[in-house]
Amino acid sequence: MKAEIIAVGNEIVYGHTVNTNASYIAQSIQELGIIPQCMVAVCDEESAIQEAVRMAMQRADVIFITGGLGPTPDDLTKEAVCHLLGEELVMLPEELEKLKTYFRRLNREMVTINEKQAAFPKKAKVLPNHCGTAPGCLFEVDGHTIILLPGPPKEMKAMFIEYVLPYLRQKVDQVFRSLDIHCFGIGESELASRIKPLLGTYEWGSVATYVGNYEVIVRIVVYGKTEDGVNQQIANIKDKIEKCLEDFVIGYNNEKLEENIVKRLIEKGYSISTVESCTGGLVAATLINCGGVSSCFNEGVVTYSNEAKMRYADVKEETLQRVGAVSEETAREMAEGIRRRAKTQIGLSTTGIAGPGGGTVEKPVGLVYIGISLPEGTEVYKLQLSGTRQEIREKTVKNILFKLYKKLK
Amino acid sequence: MKAEIIAVGNEIVYGHTVNTNASYIAQSIQELGIIPQCMVAVCDEESAIQEAVRMAMQRADVIFITGGLGPTPDDLTKEAVCHLLGEELVMLPEELEKLKTYFRRLNREMVTINEKQAAFPKKAKVLPNHCGTAPGCLFEVDGHTIILLPGPPKEMKAMFIEYVLPYLRQKVDQVFRSLDIHCFGIGESELASRIKPLLGTYEWGSVATYVGNYEVIVRIVVYGKTEDGVNQQIANIKDKIEKCLEDFVIGYNNEKLEENIVKRLIEKGYSISTVESCTGGLVAATLINCGGVSSCFNEGVVTYSNEAKMRYADVKEETLQRVGAVSEETAREMAEGIRRRAKTQIGLSTTGIAGPGGGTVEKPVGLVYIGISLPEGTEVYKLQLSGTRQEIREKTVKNILFKLYKKLK
Repeated sequence: MKAEIIAVGNEIVYGHTVNTNASYIAQSIQELGIIPQCMVAVCDEESAIQEAVRMAMQRADVIFITGGLGPTPDDLTKEAVCHLLGEELVMLPEELEKLKTYFRRLNREMVTINEKQAAFPKKAKVLPNHCGTAPGCLFEVDGHTIILLPGPPKEMKAMFIEYVLPYLRQKVDQVFRSLDIHCFGIGESELASRIKPLLGTYEWGSVATYVGNYEVIVRIVVYGKTEDGVNQQIANIKDKIEKCLEDFVIGYNNEKLEENIVKRLIEKGYSISTVESCTGGLVAATLINCGGVSSCFNEGVVTYSNEAKMRYADVKEETLQRVGAVSEETAREMAEGIRRRAKTQIGLSTTGIAGPGGGTVEKPVGLVYIGISLPEGTEVYKLQLSGTRQEIREKTVKNILFKLYKKLK
Repeated sequence: MKAEIIAVGNEIVYGHTVNTNASYIAQSIQELGIIPQCMVAVCDEESAIQEAVRMAMQRADVIFITGGLGPTPDDLTKEAVCHLLGEELVMLPEELEKLKTYFRRLNREMVTINEKQAAFPKKAKVLPNHCGTAPGCLFEVDGHTIILLPGPPKEMKAMFIEYVLPYLRQKVDQVFRSLDIHCFGIGESELASRIKPLLGTYEWGSVATYVGNYEVIVRIVVYGKTEDGVNQQIANIKDKIEKCLEDFVIGYNNEKLEENIVKRLIEKGYSISTVESCTGGLVAATLINCGGVSSCFNEGVVTYSNEAKMRYADVKEETLQRVGAVSEETAREMAEGIRRRAKTQIGLSTTGIAGPGGGTVEKPVGLVYIGISLPEGTEVYKLQLSGTRQEIREKTVKNILFKLYKKLK
């Protein structure tokens, strides 16, 4: 079954509101095996709405339309759809009564323009709105299911979960599952060429790659008749992919790298401390964004000046004079120094040139050293990163967390 | 002039990526007087891309297409557009060379599938991509401007600002200027009611409010025949708005609050240090994101445990036992302690309950104290914030920087 998702509203088309409704609906229906084909956003104009619905009916079985159900003159979705499809729009007394009750409960007067929110296509099933004044509705016409939903995401979602999903579940008899495999340290094209024989769209689903936030994601989508069969197929493909990519995998679905690290630290009873120069606190802040981190993280320092590197992490003055702050040796002394001082199992350090100024021929912008000091020894990695100051700092964080994650595996 | 914005990519249509590119482009082009008519998102299929472009050419003068410029077999935008419009797709040796250089600089091997990123419609102007491997392009055909941009928002935006905006500005025969006034510490509806007589769309442009990243933004757009006239009008409106909002204004256009703070610190010859608990390094990291910060920031500490608060910032054990870590007195001792120890003019502190666990009736999740210690004394502010762990931490950073900014003005 194919679907199309239409958003109605100037605020979307003019870019003031991002169309998160469409993404939400698209994700949700795939779990039922309904495949989104196209998303469209049009202005609050009857002809634009009608053209979008007409096109959608050529391509899709289920058509979602969000927005334009409100009380103002530019809320035109129901009118446009009824005129296009030759459906009658009728005022429902019980809906009018509900609307009046709603306003009475809020101690607000109901103005006449609100009344049109109680009018619906004659054959439609009304979908109550528990979070606002605009009910939705759905109906079948010429083999298509048309579903009208309110624009505010909170109202749309509540209605979708309570009324639309159960309705669609009845219509569909397929099981659908997806799995995202997050990878780091490999470019999209290299990754794609490693798993090339698996990439593609098949009868049973698809395997594709996406670029995320400094990551590459492999997405497996599988549909079928039984829960077990679908899960088995996901597991098969996952195994095959991971054989090609093992070292680069950092997590699945919505897991974050830092959460996987904190989980492992807690499991192993390890504590961790940080000393940061170019990242300026971003490594600590990223770890601390994980709830429960207090059982492994107590302290970190931001040592932007040489003097602070000496005072907080015992970096030797001689080292700084001889090889400079951005060097393998300084990164090593920093990581070992903070580990010793904070009495933790692990010490992390970063030192580099984030730019835009400060680069030289020997030490260009983007040169970063990261240090990881563990009970079994210290390792320092040299990175040459590209991008803006912020990107270089963010990539540094991702790199040090990735190296640490591999060590903890 | 009318525009249509097409996004190509399964990740968008399947709802895994929200189409923020469309919103960004829609907002940006309106400042040139180009009006978005419709947004469409289609799958990585040649026929779907072609149908969208064909429809767009019936409705719009300028057509933006984002995504599908990558190296993989499902990146089909250039091929689809060229086949539809009868344009020839040719390999450009100089682009191929650039691509090879890019991979060489990253010490990565360039795989054969990357080569197609160097092929472009024969008549197109290539738009360099400074943040990734996929260049964009634009060309004129039958009175339409077709603009192909990469999908990753960072790459798209950089290319849009550097190459697309200047190109479109030339095509449009008017002078446009816009000014964003960023405000903090006031809600959108209160701000709107303060400047209500100015809000609206006029013959000369518009004044509108938007909600940004914990900010409210007032955008003034003015168009006219002469540069001087337009600038004069912008200045007039800006004055009127600022009379209503003075205290809440934190910057203009792309200026960041932290950049304005660092600028002022440097002007005044002030140095600054930080001690952070709930924000875990995010205050330091935000300041350090400003180039040139090394002349005012030397060090900061992340004191997540009580013991670290005592050791790094001389917080008294008695204080921690009596009123706890999340308290006005602890925040005060932290700010004063780091200021004294780091020998800086300014010391900043944060301590709070970011959640999701750890809240009590007396000290609920979202309770945060921020301290600012200056030569003339220390002030502590109590905040009650809402949102996720990350949001509470980000709002804390914004609040302490806002308070500091007001003190430095």
